[in-house]
Amino acid sequence: MAVEVCYKVVRDGVERMTFTSKKEADAYDKMLDIAEALETMLGEVDVPLSEQQNEALALEMAKRKDQFIAALKGGKPTPPNNKAKVTDIKKVS
Amino acid sequence: MAVEVCYKVVRDGVERMTFTSKKEADAYDKMLDIAEALETMLGEVDVPLSEQQNEALALEMAKRKDQFIAALKGGKPTPPNNKAKVTDIKKVS
Repeated sequence: MAVEVCYKVVRDGVERMTFTSKKEADAYDKMLDIAEALETMLGEVDVPLSEQQNEALALEMAKRKDQFIAALKGGKPTPPNNKAKVTDIKKVS
Repeated sequence: MAVEVCYKVVRDGVERMTFTSKKEADAYDKMLDIAEALETMLGEVDVPLSEQQNEALALEMAKRKDQFIAALKGGKPTPPNNKAKVTDIKKVS
């Protein structure tokens, strides 16, 4: 019999993702924070977006934050790093 | 009779904006560069946006680049500075 530790990222009571390392869980949790902040900002700009577009776009930008920061700073957009793509979030309802 | 210098920002042969200071013209030109880079990136993310949404969103983000950079870095979004809002671009065709 073995006991394994796992780290669950929970948002508003909903389990969003489970990780085997705390570091990954923390990074994912931070990404969701960034996505939430972006969602608010995207809701404030003068461009009509559906709620779904807003949410999906905020998440995609959060996943590629380094590229978007580089582009916003006027640098050449860096190619997406080919680290394993964060799997999509399955909404556990 | 007076001769005044003015600085025109031209994109693809289209005059986009005219300024009385080179500094402002350069800043505006750089913002259009950033908007173009963002347009490309927004076109690559997995979120269906119309061409119009893509273009308008890229421009709005470029106008508020400091706020978006702060949010992407996980900082608290800074309130929009209340410097004079960059007037909308009148597409001179």
